Amino acid sequence: MFYLIGIGLGDAKDITVRGLEIVKRAESVYLESYTSILSVGKDELEKFYGRELIIADREMVEQNSEDIFKNADVSDVVLLVVGDPFGATTHLDIIIRAKQKGIPFQVVHNASILNAIGCCGLQLYSFGETVSIPYWTDTWQPDSFYDKIFENRKRGLHTLCLLDIKVKEPTLESLMKRKREYEPPRFMSVSEAADQLLQILLKKADDGELAYKESTLCVGVARVGSPTQQIVACSLKEMKEVDLGKPLHSLVITGGKLHPLEEEYLETFTAYKSNDENAGK
Amino acid sequence: MFYLIGIGLGDAKDITVRGLEIVKRAESVYLESYTSILSVGKDELEKFYGRELIIADREMVEQNSEDIFKNADVSDVVLLVVGDPFGATTHLDIIIRAKQKGIPFQVVHNASILNAIGCCGLQLYSFGETVSIPYWTDTWQPDSFYDKIFENRKRGLHTLCLLDIKVKEPTLESLMKRKREYEPPRFMSVSEAADQLLQILLKKADDGELAYKESTLCVGVARVGSPTQQIVACSLKEMKEVDLGKPLHSLVITGGKLHPLEEEYLETFTAYKSNDENAGK
Repeated sequence: MFYLIGIGLGDAKDITVRGLEIVKRAESVYLESYTSILSVGKDELEKFYGRELIIADREMVEQNSEDIFKNADVSDVVLLVVGDPFGATTHLDIIIRAKQKGIPFQVVHNASILNAIGCCGLQLYSFGETVSIPYWTDTWQPDSFYDKIFENRKRGLHTLCLLDIKVKEPTLESLMKRKREYEPPRFMSVSEAADQLLQILLKKADDGELAYKESTLCVGVARVGSPTQQIVACSLKEMKEVDLGKPLHSLVITGGKLHPLEEEYLETFTAYKSNDENAGK
Repeated sequence: MFYLIGIGLGDAKDITVRGLEIVKRAESVYLESYTSILSVGKDELEKFYGRELIIADREMVEQNSEDIFKNADVSDVVLLVVGDPFGATTHLDIIIRAKQKGIPFQVVHNASILNAIGCCGLQLYSFGETVSIPYWTDTWQPDSFYDKIFENRKRGLHTLCLLDIKVKEPTLESLMKRKREYEPPRFMSVSEAADQLLQILLKKADDGELAYKESTLCVGVARVGSPTQQIVACSLKEMKEVDLGKPLHSLVITGGKLHPLEEEYLETFTAYKSNDENAGK
């Protein structure tokens, strides 16, 4: 049996009881390591699970899934995924490939940022389409997420922005070489995301109506579900100066006027104070 | 400490290891029983947790939270919630009240339908605003969710429809009496939801452009995350005839043209076959 098991967002103990039972009895246990990361490392997971984990990078999951599937027809093989297994498209793909090879599979769900973002007090039913904000380079500065934020905000909906993660990315220089060299891992902060969002505003300045303003209320979160979780609510402009520390970070651009309960929650748990300047923008 | 702990969607073992540790050592453990239900009952949870559970109905959670908070300043009190604690607005409210009373709290996240719906193979990033479909009565037939589905579909986004749950609803006749009597619990099926959606189409027939058609591809799911989970993909009209058995059910109205991977997933795991009639409608 091939098991795709979500391990949640915080630390080793956020795996479900069902998930842990399977991990303990499985023949091999892989840890998918490129779509997200936990606040704790492989060592801590191994210690708590009492199992050795095999790191599965993008190459292994997307191109060499044969290695993972090996023996999954006669024994239990686990692929652990931070958050929920359906948080990333690549996991849909691996399930289809398992089915095509006649390998039975099971999924063990867990929390992911898509529902745990509720911890910031914004109602999950008031979120529109989720967007991803990628790291820009000098020559590649996509901003298709801007239009999605615009559409959400026209309807008064919040936008969850998932921030880029670069793990084991080959350096440009090494792409042509036999021996790959990798960039150090990078995780986009709410400050970096706010900076890119503000840069887009400058480019669109002549557009008339804009998706958001410098003063638009945003909520930044870091390490959701862990003991060091942080939530901050402020304008987009202020968010650029915010330091929420270690990864992972996510950013919410609010949809405009908040529900009174959302307002009360943010006022109770962050330094946010409702006032005319922020309200409804 | 007041703990709000998500227990996931399937059965007793879907609680996280951290959650179970807290449940085992807490002084009192409440089970919130009106915003959702598990496939297993209170008895099975009690047996697995090794703890007696106190059922917390709407009245207790929303009006008598004093009972729940009693002693939470000096000992550990748990409120268990099916899915994730932030799936329902009422839980935001109880956290604010805890904070106001100076009671420290912690949240333990888990899977909820909002992310576990990914099990149907539709990409979570292609969902728009989530809607709730309430049971209609002879005199109360709200359809505000129709406009939200319309807006989502204009943008090619899927809509997750959460289907109504009636647990411990007072009968109309008993509302004026001293002794409340309650309706038997009801859970809207995908068939009932499809029926209401089709009835709206009749009402809107003269509107010109419609949010969806009888032929629009829908995905019905039942008991997500449990061993008896079911997924079916068919037209809205066909969905009216579908019987997915016991609760809980949820319905997705697709946004139009599917991503090739979504198409492949549905073809692999349901009886759905991509054809011109369904595609892009």
